[in-house]
Amino acid sequence: MLWPTSRRGSTIADRIDLNGDVGEGAGNDAAILESVTSANIACGFHAGGPSLMARTVALAAAKGVAIGAHPGFQDAEGFGRRVMAVSPQEVHDLVVYQVGALLGFTRAAGVPMQHVKPHGALYNAAATDPALADAVATAVARVDPSLILFGLAASELIAAGERAGLRTAAEGFADRTYTSGGLLMPRSEPHSVIADHEAAVAQALRLVMDGKVRSVEGTDVEVRADTICIHGDHPKAPAAARAIRTGLAAAGIRVERLTEESSP
Amino acid sequence: MLWPTSRRGSTIADRIDLNGDVGEGAGNDAAILESVTSANIACGFHAGGPSLMARTVALAAAKGVAIGAHPGFQDAEGFGRRVMAVSPQEVHDLVVYQVGALLGFTRAAGVPMQHVKPHGALYNAAATDPALADAVATAVARVDPSLILFGLAASELIAAGERAGLRTAAEGFADRTYTSGGLLMPRSEPHSVIADHEAAVAQALRLVMDGKVRSVEGTDVEVRADTICIHGDHPKAPAAARAIRTGLAAAGIRVERLTEESSP
Amino acid sequence: MLWPTSRRGSTIADRIDLNGDVGEGAGNDAAILESVTSANIACGFHAGGPSLMARTVALAAAKGVAIGAHPGFQDAEGFGRRVMAVSPQEVHDLVVYQVGALLGFTRAAGVPMQHVKPHGALYNAAATDPALADAVATAVARVDPSLILFGLAASELIAAGERAGLRTAAEGFADRTYTSGGLLMPRSEPHSVIADHEAAVAQALRLVMDGKVRSVEGTDVEVRADTICIHGDHPKAPAAARAIRTGLAAAGIRVERLTEESSP
Amino acid sequence: MLWPTSRRGSTIADRIDLNGDVGEGAGNDAAILESVTSANIACGFHAGGPSLMARTVALAAAKGVAIGAHPGFQDAEGFGRRVMAVSPQEVHDLVVYQVGALLGFTRAAGVPMQHVKPHGALYNAAATDPALADAVATAVARVDPSLILFGLAASELIAAGERAGLRTAAEGFADRTYTSGGLLMPRSEPHSVIADHEAAVAQALRLVMDGKVRSVEGTDVEVRADTICIHGDHPKAPAAARAIRTGLAAAGIRVERLTEESSP
Repeated sequence: MLWPTSRRGSTIADRIDLNGDVGEGAGNDAAILESVTSANIACGFHAGGPSLMARTVALAAAKGVAIGAHPGFQDAEGFGRRVMAVSPQEVHDLVVYQVGALLGFTRAAGVPMQHVKPHGALYNAAATDPALADAVATAVARVDPSLILFGLAASELIAAGERAGLRTAAEGFADRTYTSGGLLMPRSEPHSVIADHEAAVAQALRLVMDGKVRSVEGTDVEVRADTICIHGDHPKAPAAARAIRTGLAAAGIRVERLTEESSP
Repeated sequence: MLWPTSRRGSTIADRIDLNGDVGEGAGNDAAILESVTSANIACGFHAGGPSLMARTVALAAAKGVAIGAHPGFQDAEGFGRRVMAVSPQEVHDLVVYQVGALLGFTRAAGVPMQHVKPHGALYNAAATDPALADAVATAVARVDPSLILFGLAASELIAAGERAGLRTAAEGFADRTYTSGGLLMPRSEPHSVIADHEAAVAQALRLVMDGKVRSVEGTDVEVRADTICIHGDHPKAPAAARAIRTGLAAAGIRVERLTEESSP
Repeated sequence: MLWPTSRRGSTIADRIDLNGDVGEGAGNDAAILESVTSANIACGFHAGGPSLMARTVALAAAKGVAIGAHPGFQDAEGFGRRVMAVSPQEVHDLVVYQVGALLGFTRAAGVPMQHVKPHGALYNAAATDPALADAVATAVARVDPSLILFGLAASELIAAGERAGLRTAAEGFADRTYTSGGLLMPRSEPHSVIADHEAAVAQALRLVMDGKVRSVEGTDVEVRADTICIHGDHPKAPAAARAIRTGLAAAGIRVERLTEESSP
Repeated sequence: MLWPTSRRGSTIADRIDLNGDVGEGAGNDAAILESVTSANIACGFHAGGPSLMARTVALAAAKGVAIGAHPGFQDAEGFGRRVMAVSPQEVHDLVVYQVGALLGFTRAAGVPMQHVKPHGALYNAAATDPALADAVATAVARVDPSLILFGLAASELIAAGERAGLRTAAEGFADRTYTSGGLLMPRSEPHSVIADHEAAVAQALRLVMDGKVRSVEGTDVEVRADTICIHGDHPKAPAAARAIRTGLAAAGIRVERLTEESSP
């Protein structure tokens, strides 16, 4: 958990970060960057490439959105969503490579890199497998110990980040359903995605204000989140992102970056 | 020119750096690293990849060899040797990406990166095209202005490096023939490669001691080199590297890194 | 020239093929396939991949659109639009590979492959360089001599196709301007693209009915086309394709495949 | 099982095919092709590429070695040895793509393609997972039903090949140890590889003559093989291949292709 919980009356928190994936070629980066405060930039393995990274860093910096690396498996054909049997050493190395590559662009642009959020199958593997989680966290810490590691709230990745001495940001999801165990319903299941914008806004509000979500089984599950993920890879993503940001603001929640914007 | 020329009697210099390409999958890295003082590590575009980069950085560091990035065109099929019509912006971005990626590994390993030497068709393009040379030099300077830029002696790349405020290392070749204009004979020409080890040693000695090579036309050409390139991509490469190093040492030339080895 | 010219009164022809690029990930394949009669399917080098190829072949076959391979340079980062200094042998091999790969999918789907149209920088290189044109044509003829080779009208590629004994389809452009020499204005020039749908329809009609286009210099240029290219890689592409098809039909031109649809 | 068992006295068979992987960049293809009768040619996903495929097809054809496709996962970094969670449809498509690509080269060279042998993690997955095995076999049968499918003896892949109506070739290993269940000892285990050439020859002889191997547990396991795999990806591979071929010949076993060589 990154933020000291800032209580306001009975609510858990009165501020939240919103993060979204960009630089993946979906064509809606500018719109997504209007709503999020943290941008996860694809690093060329599951999507993206040098010139798109350069443009995306510049775009995020111009909009004052915090910049993070979004490393994934080297599987462009499967968009990094297919599980690969990689060793912890291989995971370490592919994270070092991709975080380093983005670091090149943030250094070249003279802007800070704030965070790292693994992508797709790597995110899921690092959420549940302690050895892979440690591989990710160690890679990040070795490249730059000031980076914030984003991971599923209460997951192995958050624990590994803490073991590695990193600041971590626990992530909640507004548009995905949860099991009673606090895990995300797999995309392969029905009702795993919350397509209705109002329902997603409601889940975001509960996440921030109560630190809870209603599971698919109907029970309440505690989810303390520093940041909420906004999906960007479908046509209605920008509208959903806008709805969540507006809904949070209307409820008096400050949508803010985790770290200060760098002075120019 | 990086080094203040250290004259000894009538000779131009009494020390030289030897650089070689490694991490390209040729299988002889350990042998090459016995002879060179600067290692150019492939960054995954024309060759190499995350795990090979990690291992090669560790190997070079263990042997006290200075580490540099060896960025190339994104053309694994052609080993980065095919000219591509890339814009200066694209060149800038692919250099930023690859230098950044290697920077990830040197940071993760806790060792310094010393230099950047472009590979293959990118090296050649940057030697003669001022716009591409500036793109390379600017990319390097923006990622880390303390890096040394390696380029063909007296080429556009060396000039661009100086314009960008970088230290530069002028490169000479022991095993390639020169035109009377100071350029390398293209590989497509006969007699472009000096296969005989003794002849290569002799050319290396003249390069260091006289600052000259005998061109294919039979004239002497001035080539002031800070570093001599050792090719590693053929079976006899380690033997040639050893011969050159031994030959230089026998003549009283110190084969030394351009920069101090970092303390552990 | 593929078709025996079917004159109708004073017009050059009363039928035409429309071809469009699909399977490149632009997301509008279904719409493009409503308007074209020949589909150029990306083969995984500049865009596309196995699963997208399988789906695109199925989609084109379901709509009765003729299927062709759209091989390009192995340059996904540059979408195959960057010139690469490849040898004729390399061009031959990359065409064989990609045409073979698509042949796998048409055979697996039990549908015929009709044609091959090179993509981007490969298309342009083969239009003007006889050695590369021969490399493309020979590759196609060796893989399947019944394939039709698509190329710029009156270009080296059409000549090479005829030398290789292939049927050829000369291509005209509705939405690109021409020089008085019959070449396309380079995309880097202003006024190279005809964005206005009505103007594109008018050029298509003249191409078919008069076998001519008005060049940027204002002169008439003879362009005998068997097929007109419909660009699909911008948001308004489906609307432009529809306008051209509708405009041709309204003028009494039959928009038809070059070859019979296979019986199921 | 491809061959009608040709008994000779008490022996199970008096002939065998030897297959080896080539076109993977190991640099010893010419030597391997001296010993094997079937060549498995990498198709660009785990290794290889267009120009190497063209050269390897030509080399194998010149030596009279039967040509097969060696499709693998799209994982060059991991040499296709890492398990990927691919769907049966994805496996089908990647096999169609790669077999099609090699078919391009065999058609271009005017030589037949004989067989398909999956590589690495795909081979292992198809040996034990019926759905993936069916995906491979269906892909092969759809591209060309006359192809022979190579798979681990008595594995799911052989069963799937038979369901798909393909001829199959059951594969035994001379240089790998077996469990008492007839599976290969995983490479991660000690004693999984038989490095000693004499021991490998002995296992090859028992495979052919008795249809059995001695398992690591010390029991005899029945393994009826049509073809024996020769590994080519280590420096001593050519010597091992030669030893096995010589050893088999010395015992009176005919080392022969599964299919006739095509007449020129």
